[in-house]
Amino acid sequence: MNTDDRPPVTVIGLGAMGKALAGAFLDNGHPTTVWNRTEGKGRELVERGATEAATAAEAIAASPVVVVCVLDYDAVREILGAPGTVTGLLAGRTLVNLTNGTPRQARELARWVSGRGADYLDGGVMAVPPMIGNPGSLVLCSGSPGAFTAHEGTLSALGAVDYLGEDAGRASLYDIALLSAMYGMFGGFLQAVALTGSERIPATEFTPLVVSWLNAMLTSLPAMAKAYDANDHSATTSNLGMQATGFVNLLETGRDQGVSTELLKPMGALLDRGVAANRGDDGLSALIDLLRTGPASATDPASATDPAKGADPAKGADPARATDPARATDAGSHDVVSHHLGSE
Amino acid sequence: MNTDDRPPVTVIGLGAMGKALAGAFLDNGHPTTVWNRTEGKGRELVERGATEAATAAEAIAASPVVVVCVLDYDAVREILGAPGTVTGLLAGRTLVNLTNGTPRQARELARWVSGRGADYLDGGVMAVPPMIGNPGSLVLCSGSPGAFTAHEGTLSALGAVDYLGEDAGRASLYDIALLSAMYGMFGGFLQAVALTGSERIPATEFTPLVVSWLNAMLTSLPAMAKAYDANDHSATTSNLGMQATGFVNLLETGRDQGVSTELLKPMGALLDRGVAANRGDDGLSALIDLLRTGPASATDPASATDPAKGADPAKGADPARATDPARATDAGSHDVVSHHLGSE
Repeated sequence: MNTDDRPPVTVIGLGAMGKALAGAFLDNGHPTTVWNRTEGKGRELVERGATEAATAAEAIAASPVVVVCVLDYDAVREILGAPGTVTGLLAGRTLVNLTNGTPRQARELARWVSGRGADYLDGGVMAVPPMIGNPGSLVLCSGSPGAFTAHEGTLSALGAVDYLGEDAGRASLYDIALLSAMYGMFGGFLQAVALTGSERIPATEFTPLVVSWLNAMLTSLPAMAKAYDANDHSATTSNLGMQATGFVNLLETGRDQGVSTELLKPMGALLDRGVAANRGDDGLSALIDLLRTGPASATDPASATDPAKGADPAKGADPARATDPARATDAGSHDVVSHHLGSE
Repeated sequence: MNTDDRPPVTVIGLGAMGKALAGAFLDNGHPTTVWNRTEGKGRELVERGATEAATAAEAIAASPVVVVCVLDYDAVREILGAPGTVTGLLAGRTLVNLTNGTPRQARELARWVSGRGADYLDGGVMAVPPMIGNPGSLVLCSGSPGAFTAHEGTLSALGAVDYLGEDAGRASLYDIALLSAMYGMFGGFLQAVALTGSERIPATEFTPLVVSWLNAMLTSLPAMAKAYDANDHSATTSNLGMQATGFVNLLETGRDQGVSTELLKPMGALLDRGVAANRGDDGLSALIDLLRTGPASATDPASATDPAKGADPAKGADPARATDPARATDAGSHDVVSHHLGSE
């Protein structure tokens, strides 16, 4: 492909990530316009061939695709919401919002943007700035299917792009879910190094073992996923009862070694709750339902204001019966799991 | 090696793990004697060539190496502690204790066993029973160096054996640290699936992405370990301040999606504590010191009874100064980090 064919792109927000995004577009031959609320952030990009806009309106007017990556959604609204000046320019363009936020925020912004005649794509960038544009970089994307088809080529300058469908909140949900998994793993690692560090074992000596161990343990996640989908959690090797018993050693060791167990305690409590809910013979996947506290309110505004609305006290009172009938029914019949699974 | 040369082994405790251990010894040609407190557990092993002892004393008398894998240390003590009958038989043998426990329990038992003229090895089996004897199985081992040299060949029937030195508690410390890391990762995965499950996304659809994401994130652990050992936590990409801000989205999404944030909250609080301790510009490794609540009491009985003894109120009052001078001094000069790093 001749790089002369590459469509123009605008990048709004020139923090570390915004700069990396603009740099990747430049590297791929896209005429790139940049803008930042505070001045002086675009200098290096201009040296690399970018055009720095004087105003947000000028930046938006410059390209059919406007990528926004700022601090939070409040900042997005402030930039886009100036009536008459910026808002009026959105019609006919595609806004690609890569700002960190929640699924609900993404859906609300999608509605707002659609109301101004623009297409909306939301993205979760699963990479740190230095990785942008490299093969290891992944952009999760959801929102307008037409806009995605039209601009997939442009977005691929940033890395692998995974389109997750029309729901603008989906990319953010995946993003947040992956970050939750990551922080779990990182928290476990911090605890492990604090424990071995309490005996002056160098972390660099211990860590290769952790990495190979966690790699091995990662291979058990697909089986847990299968068990959850099938709602059949019967454990073949280590059941919740055994794990709850063994977990006491983790807490006791923390106390003996002078290491806080704050990161571990909730998992121990959840294991105990699983046993108390008659799931003692099940595997870890049985705990997922115990984390559910109610319906997904973000797509169910009626119950969002009144958490009790979706509750089924009969089910809450008998955790052993807290299976998920919605999962057993036709998945296409409703988008939202609108019943209550148990109580905290 | 002729299998006729294989030394006899005794396995006490025939739960799922004990059976797998005995089976691996049999598969490797060791004359294997088995015993379990309750009868009838050894039948299948006897069919495979094992000898079932009638009493614990008979089982111990049968082999120079006695492997014990029972429910907990209380069970170990009950079996070994019957005065005159069993205890007297231990002298000259090697006890290999693979029972789950804490470093302190291992050290106490090692002293008790040594007092009866026997060698002690403690082991952490980093595998589920079906893996025992396969290449993926790992046995962490520590205790008597002479006994390890003498019996390494026998233990290798169980899988790869990693000897961690003379301290009987070391294998257990590694074991517990690895399990802590594992539960962190599993907890993060449960949270992630609960989040995506709240929108009826099949776990089997989402999980391949989690596995590949966590694999990618695992590659950042060695850098964190290096930062911790160097006590230089300066962040190059994502600092604690940014992470604490972004973490709010994880908690908010949990609430929006009807998913408990109980597993996430302590990590959020720890990030906030890092920022409050003026570590906002540092990376995640800076949080490890914040998990330290005092000296490792297990090897420092003097302070175990009085947690306040090792505390340094001046340091506790100024978290910004809560670095770890012990790590900067000669590592060989004392085995125990005997000062206080901060307060919870």
